[in-house]
Amino acid sequence: MSSTLPEPEPLKALIEALRRLPGVGARTARRMAYHMLQHDVAGAQHLAAALGDAVRDLRHCERCNGFSDEAICPVCANPKRDPSLLCVVETPADQNMIESSHGYKGLYYVLMGRLAPLEGVGPAELQFDRLIRRACDGEVREVILATNFTAEGETTAHYLAESLRSHGLAVSRLARGVPAGSELEYVDAGTIAWALMERRSS
Amino acid sequence: MSSTLPEPEPLKALIEALRRLPGVGARTARRMAYHMLQHDVAGAQHLAAALGDAVRDLRHCERCNGFSDEAICPVCANPKRDPSLLCVVETPADQNMIESSHGYKGLYYVLMGRLAPLEGVGPAELQFDRLIRRACDGEVREVILATNFTAEGETTAHYLAESLRSHGLAVSRLARGVPAGSELEYVDAGTIAWALMERRSS
Ligand SMILES: [Zn+2]
Ligand SMILES: [Zn+2]
Repeated sequence: MSSTLPEPEPLKALIEALRRLPGVGARTARRMAYHMLQHDVAGAQHLAAALGDAVRDLRHCERCNGFSDEAICPVCANPKRDPSLLCVVETPADQNMIESSHGYKGLYYVLMGRLAPLEGVGPAELQFDRLIRRACDGEVREVILATNFTAEGETTAHYLAESLRSHGLAVSRLARGVPAGSELEYVDAGTIAWALMERRSS
Repeated sequence: MSSTLPEPEPLKALIEALRRLPGVGARTARRMAYHMLQHDVAGAQHLAAALGDAVRDLRHCERCNGFSDEAICPVCANPKRDPSLLCVVETPADQNMIESSHGYKGLYYVLMGRLAPLEGVGPAELQFDRLIRRACDGEVREVILATNFTAEGETTAHYLAESLRSHGLAVSRLARGVPAGSELEYVDAGTIAWALMERRSS
């Protein structure tokens, strides 16, 4: 705008880059930039390095599709976990919530998303074929669908249930102890433990 | 916590780095990291580069102390601005708000903070001596104190007013048209224009 002061180019570029973070608008981005440049230059350098490292070093676990810095993540590589159970979640945050319930000792598969046709996210984008192959390794007996109890999460679960059942797998869904319409990440661990126990055939 | 999954080191480091941003807690940082790594790797690289550039290229204008990529910023170098007026603000955001009121054609000095004894921010930390030197360049006739109308902003203004007056400078304060207790950044431009017009001797 002509009514505000010209900002130096590197500052403008930094503010624009920060705006790409989820939930960060113009004003927040500007405050973040000012703060780092004025009060935490070390933090800015630290963040730049961490971003570079993460982009370079992180990949997806070949088995569960979660973030990992090795080909197979520690959870998938853990021989103490029950390989006959595969829990499908939308995000690593959901996986963390399930884990914190202490109610689950099987393995995971992280979709890294959910079916959202309006946003162009279909079975191909989520690589459902990869999940099916993973679930058909001969060891998995039951797939627990722990997608969110939102419209999109339910659609994803229905779609996956049909696919997986057509491959002869037992499929269950977290019990409806989880309040309908809510996201797993915001549900308390006790409720999740209960929902895991009460899971029903899907 | 032992109850959540181990996160790969580069992911953990990125989340920690994001938490140093103002207003960003653990959950928000995690969401930001997941989002960038899953959906916007280009954005992550972009942000890393922008941070590096800003830290390397940005400095403080020698005259106004605002962010600049040159020794003297375009505002201070603009011969059309009135060098007899110097407006003191806490932050570049406040400077932008004053500018957007179209009510001011003088020069600025950006404190990059305010007196906050409890946080260890005193006159030395804010380099008040630099401001005094700037104001005593022989061209400045009036210093307009446009710090926030918060307790800390008022304290800063009182302190500066005494200092500046002891150097024979005329000192004024934005009129109380600005609602008491509020921060300039959140005040509409019309109110600021009015407060500038009605500024009183401080
Ligand atoms: Zn894995
Ligand atoms: Zn300047």
